[in-house]
Amino acid sequence: MTTDKIASLKRLLDPKKIAIIGASNAKEKVGGIVFRRLLASRRRLFAVNPNEIAIEGHKVYSNIALLPDKIDLAVITIGAAAAVKAVKACIQKKIPNYILVAGGFGEVGSQGRELEEKLKTLAQQHKINILGPNSLGIFLPNENIDTIFVEHGDQALDRKGKVACIVQSGSVGVEALGYAANTGYGMRAFVGLGNKCDLDEIDFLHYFAQDEKTNCLGFYLENIEKGRQFLEIAKQTTKEKPVVVLKAGRTHTAASAVTSHTGKLAGSDKVISGALKQFGIQRVYDDEAFCDATKVLSMLGDAPGDRVAVLTAAGGYGVMCTDFVEKKKTRAGLRMAKLSRQAKTIIKEATFPFTACDNPVDITASATDDMFSQSLDALIQDDGVDIIICIAFFAPPGITENLIDIIAKKIQKTPKPIIVFTKYGPFTDTCIKDFFYAGVVAYPSIRRAVRAARFLVERKQIKHRLLREEAQS
Amino acid sequence: MTTDKIASLKRLLDPKKIAIIGASNAKEKVGGIVFRRLLASRRRLFAVNPNEIAIEGHKVYSNIALLPDKIDLAVITIGAAAAVKAVKACIQKKIPNYILVAGGFGEVGSQGRELEEKLKTLAQQHKINILGPNSLGIFLPNENIDTIFVEHGDQALDRKGKVACIVQSGSVGVEALGYAANTGYGMRAFVGLGNKCDLDEIDFLHYFAQDEKTNCLGFYLENIEKGRQFLEIAKQTTKEKPVVVLKAGRTHTAASAVTSHTGKLAGSDKVISGALKQFGIQRVYDDEAFCDATKVLSMLGDAPGDRVAVLTAAGGYGVMCTDFVEKKKTRAGLRMAKLSRQAKTIIKEATFPFTACDNPVDITASATDDMFSQSLDALIQDDGVDIIICIAFFAPPGITENLIDIIAKKIQKTPKPIIVFTKYGPFTDTCIKDFFYAGVVAYPSIRRAVRAARFLVERKQIKHRLLREEAQS
Repeated sequence: MTTDKIASLKRLLDPKKIAIIGASNAKEKVGGIVFRRLLASRRRLFAVNPNEIAIEGHKVYSNIALLPDKIDLAVITIGAAAAVKAVKACIQKKIPNYILVAGGFGEVGSQGRELEEKLKTLAQQHKINILGPNSLGIFLPNENIDTIFVEHGDQALDRKGKVACIVQSGSVGVEALGYAANTGYGMRAFVGLGNKCDLDEIDFLHYFAQDEKTNCLGFYLENIEKGRQFLEIAKQTTKEKPVVVLKAGRTHTAASAVTSHTGKLAGSDKVISGALKQFGIQRVYDDEAFCDATKVLSMLGDAPGDRVAVLTAAGGYGVMCTDFVEKKKTRAGLRMAKLSRQAKTIIKEATFPFTACDNPVDITASATDDMFSQSLDALIQDDGVDIIICIAFFAPPGITENLIDIIAKKIQKTPKPIIVFTKYGPFTDTCIKDFFYAGVVAYPSIRRAVRAARFLVERKQIKHRLLREEAQS
Repeated sequence: MTTDKIASLKRLLDPKKIAIIGASNAKEKVGGIVFRRLLASRRRLFAVNPNEIAIEGHKVYSNIALLPDKIDLAVITIGAAAAVKAVKACIQKKIPNYILVAGGFGEVGSQGRELEEKLKTLAQQHKINILGPNSLGIFLPNENIDTIFVEHGDQALDRKGKVACIVQSGSVGVEALGYAANTGYGMRAFVGLGNKCDLDEIDFLHYFAQDEKTNCLGFYLENIEKGRQFLEIAKQTTKEKPVVVLKAGRTHTAASAVTSHTGKLAGSDKVISGALKQFGIQRVYDDEAFCDATKVLSMLGDAPGDRVAVLTAAGGYGVMCTDFVEKKKTRAGLRMAKLSRQAKTIIKEATFPFTACDNPVDITASATDDMFSQSLDALIQDDGVDIIICIAFFAPPGITENLIDIIAKKIQKTPKPIIVFTKYGPFTDTCIKDFFYAGVVAYPSIRRAVRAARFLVERKQIKHRLLREEAQS
């Protein structure tokens, strides 16, 4: 991707001057919602609507032709046919970037397809960037840029997040956003691709691969048109940053192969999975796994190996967790670590002589914060342990909410990944969010906590393999 | 189990007169918590504590010997050694049932083991029932009986629930309770087995098998002492009511077989799994699956077959859901139903000519409540559909919260199982609870909704097999 293209996408994602075509006083209209959301961005906004005079104290232009020069981005909130006309008018004003929110294009039959073709031609002829049509919009919490017209619970998103989410489906995207926000999620950017008449996954893969504020890329894609190209760039990216792809339709897609001829990534799902794996992409199958994977890959470093230690004050959960760790035929193998004699001695001394130290380490419901802390230290210092899963419960009388800070501080000091499984009755989500704000990755189910460890090991295996391939070539 | 034993367990689980040994004014003490919880039961309470005169306006007895006759249950909240003495004193008063909350018995070394042996002997000699020691207590929402001394979010539990949960581990049990309560769960009874010095899983399997208010039994067990007996009774039970078992330790248990010699259900996990399956028990591996399984098995009828129809207004989720339905190597096979021409015609007429009707049925984000309702009717009436998964989103402007009632009313009128997958940003749990109170089983993840369908199909297969075996013998 040329530096020009990157610079122009930067103007799309971090615009100084924004025109909102169809901005409205009606708060329920898309043009009303988007305009108000963008007010919070403190960018210079230019509303266009022939039927309005002022919105929230802002002057409204009756006509695109009257807009000032050097606008970076036009967000077009009006219906399909009118939107195409608006793009044409904006091109006259040399506006380089467009977000088209409206549906009614390629997804609704031949008339819509014609309109979409027109957009495509305009983009090519005039070298403009069009996101959409039928795009959910963009949302960059760090930059205070938000054009998403549906409710999406962003309040809970961390402002310093590092995950770039590029999603093709609107509804899945927005639900995933809300879900992630519930329990804390660090988002760098959210981009709704929509119908991809111009900008597509390749453009944003390029962009966020070079973006310094991004450390993990997640894609939810329903089709990958330029499959070969996507794979090649992803492979380059994944040497530095993990790339996660949620691609549905894994079982009943029409069978054909990944061909360099058409370049389409289609075909039997086995072929797709194989190709993604070969090129270092981590594949997931639903939005829960998408959020879980990007969260852990963004917040924790690579696992040095596959040996897991489990620390718990609730014996039953320790055993269940062991079951999940030792489960075979899954993403990436894990083993229960064999603890060093030294670690066991430290733990027994810090807790009770009868503490079960054979991993899972069960310090029992009589444990205190301090015992948990010292036992965790012993596991961090044990070279035979690569990943630690902490089972954090607040029911034992000696365990308090200080445990969150205790674990957080240790995470800051060690490169060894520490993942938390926690439950707290009706306060579970809040508790996970508290962990998140302290910098700790926590999940409300054992299965998901163990799967998170697998994502880290898978990531390490990918990096290892790509580096080896590079050395051999 | 004799009718006498059932009658005596009924006095344990639905007592008229309860003595609380160690009842206290101190609100943080176990004896303070349990006494106050039991006040809500409106049963006749008799507090015993030599150091108190009155608690919450109730007279306190200084001595067990002073208690009146015909007490049904003694809840003993004092420490291990004192608790054993208290049981002896209560036996003099001919009290037939005991709940022992304190730990410090078999789980903490030889001295504790001796005390536990004493309890065991007392139980055998005097034909009393002892639950525990180290029991979390009992909780029967219908009967307003609650002796659980830790916070457990019961407010959210349905008072007319039909699941009996019998759990060995305290912490896992109480977290599962809180978790279930978060999103609605119909509980008939919760029993914390603790160390099982006397009463064990067999007793409660017997009891709830014959209990008319129970329609599903769930066990969380860490060891099953009388394995053969448990299996035989479970097999009888499961002809009428589903039995779910969470048994951890599936991968690294010491290898030995299920022997009729010792009768212990131990050995390699494969053997355990095989035995459970053969005897018609549905096995799960963590508390999430435990709650999910018992919820759906209790609330919905058997699936007539394995053909699933998926109805959605969010296309992406429809495809993901299909992936999970078609996944192989799992609990019980499912297939995507082939819809009848009639169903497709009705749906297209009710929605749009371009609606994708090839299952998943994607009525698009332009759908309304009414379109959803009519499409659902078409799937209910289609004889080629055995189970319906509804993907319920509230983002489309035409879909309102009335959808909850719409789906609930259809469930009341059809025996065909309908399961909901829903997400609603930060309101997801509340939404699932709203569905629950309307009588609808909903889950916040596709994977879990599809797994719920598998539990129903597995249940049907079990019943079918057991009936066939019966006919052949």
